[in-house]
Amino acid sequence: MPRPIILDCDPGHDDAISLILALSSDALDVLAVTTSAGNQTPDKTLNNALRVLTLLGRHDIAVAGGAPKPLARELIIADNVHGESGLDGPELPEPGFAPVTQSAIELMAEKVRACEQKVTLVPSGPLTNIALFLSAYPELHSRIDSIVLMGGAAGVGNWTPAAEFNIFVDPEAADMVFKSGLPIVMCGLDVTHQAQIMDEDIERIRAIDNPVAQCVAELLDFFMIYHRDPKWGFNGAPLHDPCTIAWLLAPELFTTVECWVGVETQGEHTQGMTVVDRYQLTGKPHNARVLFDIERQGFVDLIVRQLAQHSPR
Amino acid sequence: MPRPIILDCDPGHDDAISLILALSSDALDVLAVTTSAGNQTPDKTLNNALRVLTLLGRHDIAVAGGAPKPLARELIIADNVHGESGLDGPELPEPGFAPVTQSAIELMAEKVRACEQKVTLVPSGPLTNIALFLSAYPELHSRIDSIVLMGGAAGVGNWTPAAEFNIFVDPEAADMVFKSGLPIVMCGLDVTHQAQIMDEDIERIRAIDNPVAQCVAELLDFFMIYHRDPKWGFNGAPLHDPCTIAWLLAPELFTTVECWVGVETQGEHTQGMTVVDRYQLTGKPHNARVLFDIERQGFVDLIVRQLAQHSPR
Amino acid sequence: MPRPIILDCDPGHDDAISLILALSSDALDVLAVTTSAGNQTPDKTLNNALRVLTLLGRHDIAVAGGAPKPLARELIIADNVHGESGLDGPELPEPGFAPVTQSAIELMAEKVRACEQKVTLVPSGPLTNIALFLSAYPELHSRIDSIVLMGGAAGVGNWTPAAEFNIFVDPEAADMVFKSGLPIVMCGLDVTHQAQIMDEDIERIRAIDNPVAQCVAELLDFFMIYHRDPKWGFNGAPLHDPCTIAWLLAPELFTTVECWVGVETQGEHTQGMTVVDRYQLTGKPHNARVLFDIERQGFVDLIVRQLAQHSPR
Amino acid sequence: MPRPIILDCDPGHDDAISLILALSSDALDVLAVTTSAGNQTPDKTLNNALRVLTLLGRHDIAVAGGAPKPLARELIIADNVHGESGLDGPELPEPGFAPVTQSAIELMAEKVRACEQKVTLVPSGPLTNIALFLSAYPELHSRIDSIVLMGGAAGVGNWTPAAEFNIFVDPEAADMVFKSGLPIVMCGLDVTHQAQIMDEDIERIRAIDNPVAQCVAELLDFFMIYHRDPKWGFNGAPLHDPCTIAWLLAPELFTTVECWVGVETQGEHTQGMTVVDRYQLTGKPHNARVLFDIERQGFVDLIVRQLAQHSPR
Ligand SMILES: [Ca+2]
Ligand SMILES: [Ca+2]
Ligand SMILES: [Ca+2]
Ligand SMILES: [Ca+2]
Repeated sequence: MPRPIILDCDPGHDDAISLILALSSDALDVLAVTTSAGNQTPDKTLNNALRVLTLLGRHDIAVAGGAPKPLARELIIADNVHGESGLDGPELPEPGFAPVTQSAIELMAEKVRACEQKVTLVPSGPLTNIALFLSAYPELHSRIDSIVLMGGAAGVGNWTPAAEFNIFVDPEAADMVFKSGLPIVMCGLDVTHQAQIMDEDIERIRAIDNPVAQCVAELLDFFMIYHRDPKWGFNGAPLHDPCTIAWLLAPELFTTVECWVGVETQGEHTQGMTVVDRYQLTGKPHNARVLFDIERQGFVDLIVRQLAQHSPR
Repeated sequence: MPRPIILDCDPGHDDAISLILALSSDALDVLAVTTSAGNQTPDKTLNNALRVLTLLGRHDIAVAGGAPKPLARELIIADNVHGESGLDGPELPEPGFAPVTQSAIELMAEKVRACEQKVTLVPSGPLTNIALFLSAYPELHSRIDSIVLMGGAAGVGNWTPAAEFNIFVDPEAADMVFKSGLPIVMCGLDVTHQAQIMDEDIERIRAIDNPVAQCVAELLDFFMIYHRDPKWGFNGAPLHDPCTIAWLLAPELFTTVECWVGVETQGEHTQGMTVVDRYQLTGKPHNARVLFDIERQGFVDLIVRQLAQHSPR
Repeated sequence: MPRPIILDCDPGHDDAISLILALSSDALDVLAVTTSAGNQTPDKTLNNALRVLTLLGRHDIAVAGGAPKPLARELIIADNVHGESGLDGPELPEPGFAPVTQSAIELMAEKVRACEQKVTLVPSGPLTNIALFLSAYPELHSRIDSIVLMGGAAGVGNWTPAAEFNIFVDPEAADMVFKSGLPIVMCGLDVTHQAQIMDEDIERIRAIDNPVAQCVAELLDFFMIYHRDPKWGFNGAPLHDPCTIAWLLAPELFTTVECWVGVETQGEHTQGMTVVDRYQLTGKPHNARVLFDIERQGFVDLIVRQLAQHSPR
Repeated sequence: MPRPIILDCDPGHDDAISLILALSSDALDVLAVTTSAGNQTPDKTLNNALRVLTLLGRHDIAVAGGAPKPLARELIIADNVHGESGLDGPELPEPGFAPVTQSAIELMAEKVRACEQKVTLVPSGPLTNIALFLSAYPELHSRIDSIVLMGGAAGVGNWTPAAEFNIFVDPEAADMVFKSGLPIVMCGLDVTHQAQIMDEDIERIRAIDNPVAQCVAELLDFFMIYHRDPKWGFNGAPLHDPCTIAWLLAPELFTTVECWVGVETQGEHTQGMTVVDRYQLTGKPHNARVLFDIERQGFVDLIVRQLAQHSPR
């Protein structure tokens, strides 16, 4: 029986690839897609989710837009990374269907209530919607399997020296999620910076003969641009968000440590930092499984394998 | 046409009196009552709201319980003020009806959507539910007239030297509400500490011959105990929450100043403080009308007049 | 035997008047004058102290300049209040003598070591020098009688909604002083905003026939300008710094409460606030005597009486 | 001409070894040793410095004790690492001479003033004394070559998940030092955790036939105990403080990056963190050279070589 998941995303190049991977596998049952404001404005991330699902021909997936801005702060977007549309690069179809009329958290609640299995939430943007859902529907906590999120870092940040983008944008929401008591898997920069896709990997994807793989190759072409800046010391582009789906499909690719993780909402230089107690210095109980290492080649192979599913058989 | 309002409260002695006042006037149309965790645990404040409405014979009012705890912090309760039940003192009937099955914010959304007029929200507890409602239903902001809240202080606090209880309990929620851009009326300690009810006022209420007034007199008997501590320098007990209803019914009793108000969510000693820019030192635009003074005798007369409505005519 | 004091000031109009009052009384023995950066840049406040002492003919007083900036922050000055020179208004003589070659804290240490009595420190600017002195010379703490400072507020601030200027400029230093364990008398805005000098008071001073009183009248003429802004609701100009000397000469003019006072060094909106636990809500032990009320007429009479000392007899 | 340095330390095992290395080289001229409160209480760290210098027969070095506690916080000590005396393990001689009568910062000022060359400050404990010295003697900044300090981390902390001990103990002091504008070399945990001394290295030291090397071997025996906890993932014990001396003697052993470094004095989980902008995300100018990697074998060889200097030739 496939694992039921809800994707909450802000596409975003790596969100789009994550969405494509999730919908390429029989092991996962995508109950709904909700969108957060983050990589781009909420209208654009919603539109991008619809465009990707339209490309995949998955008009059957219920889609809802979420909160238009972080809980208590003004929206910050990452158009320097993702471009004007949030998905610059490939030619994507216009949306072939409309979002549901419910809000993101109402759609989540409906799907979680209706599902016989516990549902896994997979956020790959700021955690605004997830925090609101958990606060507004405490009676549904027992119906949630876990939260597998892309966000944070045990080491260095990517938006500020201390903070990763998704957590930085809405630290209050992240704080609420990490304090929720639900099982959390954190795919942070420690692992996603190892999940680099190289030029040769892109060519391998481009060689897959179907439009979905072509689109992914073009998304990666654009995503590469920002990450070629030598200051990062990268050889490729870190595929942040797809690490969540890779974890669900192939956890054996990762090494993990159970840790206490706190979210810094205060601080002059550290707002939005995930403080990861790797050495057990605080004495606080574990609240997250933190991914630290990935077998990169296996990760790339997994992506290639899933994208090949879209070719005619 | 009466003014439609939704009461979000944590009864609490002064919340109960506030509820009674609101339901004693033809000028107000109480669309719903929702409850927050604050003066007591969420199950008790919900139960207390039902008991007060049962006393009033108002089984027609839709009631819903809200979030079980503040957004990002553990719940703090004020049982030192309000006793074990949250409404210690009078003998109140057991609830004669049940809450609706919706959550507080779903009930708010339903009532606001259905109302032809703009609705006024009247929170008299921590702002958790209001913050969640505003975040989850941005499309309904335009249907809200204003938020008339009890909370905060321009001067000294009552729970910490800097903070008033309602804001201190959930400062992140308060921050979200004050940043919402909606019109806010802040009934803080500056005015509520002037809205003291004296022993002779209680006797005046006790002399009103109906069970509602009797209940209010007994609520006040108990509420007096905490406030007789000479450290406060009070002559009576400050009727915090009923100031919101008094403002709606008789704004001429108050003096007010339009100010910028910020909520301190950080700080070592100041968390939960409402920072009120009375002298326009920040240059930030006004976001709240702050009540500073009340004509106390008129306030007491108003209460007495409303309670007399419950006597047989 | 006169009480030995060291004045640490940032003249500044009210500092200058404070200095003049201190040097007009046989009850006080001014061991040294040190200057802090605050109302103006450190070179100007040092120069101003020398000019005032030159006017008074007190070349015998040892003067030293202190730290050029706050401990951990950039310097903020109040030239909007005190003008380009820091003492705009009267014609003051150029300095007729030079500061000592020691630093402020070395001069303080020398004077405290040499004094047979315990010494009272009287800061009327940011607390940078006092904090450094206390940290650098722990062995001299037992030689300090008390610290009588102008700074802070139990209620509303004057530089931000929450903070008074002297504490705001160097909150880390203030925090160190309030945590020092030494007896502290805090003359904050609560009392200094009552210590207003009115137009008629200035005329009374101008009628005193000596150059010192003339200078004070002219200082007050200029100082009035900033405080006439109706937003303050003042009738006159609050004579902040002279309250310290008035306390030393005539404590019976004041009402005071022993309180715990904490300095907020963090906070988004509250940095530099003195949090005064007037209602004993924190359970923390008293560390300061806070002045709350002043008998204004007595204060004005005291000033007039002291200024008359400078007239030929 | 040897490089003039002042060591400000809190011995501490690694401080002691650092002191020994500094006094073993003709390339360095130790003008003075001052002590800070940190690894142990101020009386013990002062006593330990005197004992180590007595062992070395260096009664000629001027020693002074510094501030008894951090600027604005209570003292935290690391007796879990360094034992009851702060130098548990070897039998050290009792002090054969006394500290000077000046305070630490007065001694620093005297030595810096008297030195013809610019002086390098080498703190290996909390930065309390250095911060006080810089604040109290701004006129001597131009006489300081640089500050080569052990403290902080670009990645994970050792006292809290975010903070290294020396910075955590007195973050306000560290903030003042990093903002001083003086050239700073930061030997943080990134490099010192690589500077591990292994069991075989200790045996190599023990084989050196002189009492100083014997003492170092015994210091290392004790220092190993704390670091054998498998949670650290160490093979040996990280020789934090001696990295400062190794940098002065053999900078070619290290790789470094010029970065902006900020000290977090606020934050719920991050106080005392050094925020290192390795990826130039803040746009703030460099204020420190941060050591990132060390050639470990070369480091050990250097120690062995210096300790052999103490053998009779
Ligand atoms: Ca994303
Ligand atoms: Ca209430
Ligand atoms: Ca002043
Ligand atoms: Ca050390």
